[in-house]
Amino acid sequence: MTKRIVIALGGNALGKTLHEQMDAVNITAKAIADLIEEGYEVVISHGNGPQVGMIQNAFAAYRREDETREMMPLSMCVAMSQGYIGYDLQNLIGEELDRRETGMHIATVLTQVVVDPNDPAFQHPSKPIGAFMTEAEAKKLAAEKGVDVAEDAGRGWRQVVASPKPKEIVEINTIRALLDGRHAVIAAGGGGIPVVWEGKYHLKGVPAVIDKDYASERLAEQLDADLFVILTAVEKVAVNFGKSDERGLDTLTPAEARRYIAQGQFAPGSMLPKVEAAIRFAESERGRTALITKLERAKDGIAGLTGTRIATN
Amino acid sequence: MTKRIVIALGGNALGKTLHEQMDAVNITAKAIADLIEEGYEVVISHGNGPQVGMIQNAFAAYRREDETREMMPLSMCVAMSQGYIGYDLQNLIGEELDRRETGMHIATVLTQVVVDPNDPAFQHPSKPIGAFMTEAEAKKLAAEKGVDVAEDAGRGWRQVVASPKPKEIVEINTIRALLDGRHAVIAAGGGGIPVVWEGKYHLKGVPAVIDKDYASERLAEQLDADLFVILTAVEKVAVNFGKSDERGLDTLTPAEARRYIAQGQFAPGSMLPKVEAAIRFAESERGRTALITKLERAKDGIAGLTGTRIATN
Repeated sequence: MTKRIVIALGGNALGKTLHEQMDAVNITAKAIADLIEEGYEVVISHGNGPQVGMIQNAFAAYRREDETREMMPLSMCVAMSQGYIGYDLQNLIGEELDRRETGMHIATVLTQVVVDPNDPAFQHPSKPIGAFMTEAEAKKLAAEKGVDVAEDAGRGWRQVVASPKPKEIVEINTIRALLDGRHAVIAAGGGGIPVVWEGKYHLKGVPAVIDKDYASERLAEQLDADLFVILTAVEKVAVNFGKSDERGLDTLTPAEARRYIAQGQFAPGSMLPKVEAAIRFAESERGRTALITKLERAKDGIAGLTGTRIATN
Repeated sequence: MTKRIVIALGGNALGKTLHEQMDAVNITAKAIADLIEEGYEVVISHGNGPQVGMIQNAFAAYRREDETREMMPLSMCVAMSQGYIGYDLQNLIGEELDRRETGMHIATVLTQVVVDPNDPAFQHPSKPIGAFMTEAEAKKLAAEKGVDVAEDAGRGWRQVVASPKPKEIVEINTIRALLDGRHAVIAAGGGGIPVVWEGKYHLKGVPAVIDKDYASERLAEQLDADLFVILTAVEKVAVNFGKSDERGLDTLTPAEARRYIAQGQFAPGSMLPKVEAAIRFAESERGRTALITKLERAKDGIAGLTGTRIATN
């Protein structure tokens, strides 16, 4: 039976600038095509931090030139970033698939992800986005536009938004239809366009960003994936990271992973959400495995040769 | 047998600003959902003139603040506009489909469209895009960046790009897979992301914009649609448009349409490309019909009650 894999691409898979993206996506496309060529059903998600920041900054600059212009909602900026990144990924992965005569196709699905309007994250917006400002500029923006601002690690002031947990991938049937039709699929880019239910039928965009590791995990659960792969900058999850006694981990049970979390082994905003997402997937149903490794080792990791595997057994 | 319809939405279906778009897309979504509910297989394409102009202008403003920033390529701006508009359309059409319990889904396909690098349009870039400039600013941009600029109808100087003819919809298999999987599909937004073949496998983005009526026509041909519908501001194509003896047309053969074109009855950049695209579809294969009408009359038009039909018989 065909193994279904959901892959969350880390920031290094795309680069931070347009120029970096050109090189990075080339390498990423080859690594992903390797997996599709081996016969896996592949769904790819990706982050969008630098890209959505750039898009927001561009519209902020546009508005500074004429303050009568409307603010571009963050949900719209996420949608644009899915177009921007998805085009590049599908162009280059498609090229690799054709070159290898796989008979497989690739498509990007514009993806909305439902969050809970009562998620406590909305009470404590903490995720910095967009351009740096002076304190005075930030407070003026906050007063005029009702947005939240905060000082960001001594580097200046920025807008902060909520980062609520993903509940549901809206376009899940689209992804399934494409998998059934010999496609690899790029979906839930940037964690998805964040939306909340308004009544039974309407989905309203909200100013938030969803963590791409958590969103990818939801995607993997809803697609009943066999394997959930988080690609990041390191080959294995390590304890005592960066110290002389640093040690890479081959396997982890959810219980072991939780003990390391309690010890503060994993950095918040970096390895911690990845390990948390991996635990969640491993515990979601018997036989589900999560894997954390780096892009260049993805093929070997999926073959069981490297990376850190999180599973209940 | 299910009738397959490709619908090209005109600019009025989306509005010119973010605010206009909110109202316009609501009306559009209901009209499109009417057709899907009646059992037609529906593929929707749309223009992106105001939206891609806004995105380009935003990145131009961003770059004016720091000239070391990279120029955002036009192909990337088109990809972003597909995300921006597609999200809005699929959100509201999806809502209508759920409300009516159709069991149908909707998705946006990021779409690349191949053009010929030898298309004569590349020798005569004529389609104005982006912000107005002074003559001096325009000539400086042209000298520094190698782009083409031209004076636009007495309103100032603008960048001009080529508007080559569409040859091939790259993601046609994706659209087919989704139609097979109970989806209505939004595709080839803004005429598609313009790409050219570089060698046998690589598709390279080019600074061009493809006419959305021509791109939609290619889409309708490649999907073997029964009906190609162009929605615009008027209920019927008219001769002597705007004069006292203006006369709306119910049916046209390609030969009759060509006679009116020769008389200069249809405005270039407005009704002319629509009639040309309609002729092309009607002549592409026996039994294919094109229809030009307005959004509010789409359902009646498809039922044969209004609009202008172009067909060989």
